Amino acid sequence: MGNVYIGLVHYPVYNKRGKVITSAITNYDIHDIARAARTYGIHGYYIIHPLAEQIDLAQEIIAYWKQGYGAEYNPDRAEALSILDVYTDINSAVKSIETVEHCLPIVITTDAREYSNTRSYLQIRNMLETDNRPIFLLFGTAWGIQHEVMQQFDYILEPIHGVSGYNHLSVRSAVAIILDRLLGEKWWLE
Amino acid sequence: MGNVYIGLVHYPVYNKRGKVITSAITNYDIHDIARAARTYGIHGYYIIHPLAEQIDLAQEIIAYWKQGYGAEYNPDRAEALSILDVYTDINSAVKSIETVEHCLPIVITTDAREYSNTRSYLQIRNMLETDNRPIFLLFGTAWGIQHEVMQQFDYILEPIHGVSGYNHLSVRSAVAIILDRLLGEKWWLE
Repeated sequence: MGNVYIGLVHYPVYNKRGKVITSAITNYDIHDIARAARTYGIHGYYIIHPLAEQIDLAQEIIAYWKQGYGAEYNPDRAEALSILDVYTDINSAVKSIETVEHCLPIVITTDAREYSNTRSYLQIRNMLETDNRPIFLLFGTAWGIQHEVMQQFDYILEPIHGVSGYNHLSVRSAVAIILDRLLGEKWWLE
Repeated sequence: MGNVYIGLVHYPVYNKRGKVITSAITNYDIHDIARAARTYGIHGYYIIHPLAEQIDLAQEIIAYWKQGYGAEYNPDRAEALSILDVYTDINSAVKSIETVEHCLPIVITTDAREYSNTRSYLQIRNMLETDNRPIFLLFGTAWGIQHEVMQQFDYILEPIHGVSGYNHLSVRSAVAIILDRLLGEKWWLE
């Protein structure tokens, strides 16, 4: 099994009207996702945002929990944030993984629609278990990653269906569920 | 299968030093958990808090998204919050479920330790599929529900293990994962 990385994409993503925008960095996205990533053995959690001010904001939040009062008060959170980094775009995050791993990562995202390269959770889980290449799982904020960009990725994970026809999970909840499905203990076997 | 309810307990819970406290209501707990609950077909999501000021705060947030500008801007969120209610303590939430369902709910929570009534995710999932009684899944905020109170519940779900020895998931992430394990589609079957 190769190392798994995750990325939270703030550009290019859609707003609710289908226009491509840059979304804002959210404090809870940093914390909740870092803690879930750390729990599931993720090697790096990369916030992807093109704007310097927003990157500075993310760095400040990270520094508070890594070195400031937050680190003293809550060392578990500091530990979770140790895997965090910030990149201006998807390509530079991919390149940094390539530099460390000496191999291009397999890039995977999720989408509500079906594509020729859509795979089930079981298929991707099995691939993770047998493939030694690094994996880069990308999650879109707002209403999801722009299609043209998504089409360059290797695989698309099928959506989380739920049971009600309603599916508007927060990206934080979706990341937690997807990491559990792909990397969690096999709780469904007795 | 009976109707499933969830509750987010703010008292009595532990702080990081093991002292029993009342935790504060968090905006993201309301939203993220309501959206996950709605996705997994939960019948009612009950915030449990003893203090009137905090209950008022929760009601204000709910009203904003149900009736205010939030409802107009984001109707999906209003729909998720339609299952939300606030109770002052666990017992009154249990009683309200009993009144609606004409039957006491089976009360279940999670804990890091093993008890004689600890059950696996598969066991509880199978129980949900075959039992027609209502289920009330309780989640503790802060460092978890006070043990004396927890001992009155019917079952304890085993913890989410993850893969790293580190497990400090946010309650929001834990709820999402647990609902997916107990109620999600059987993605592990091809």
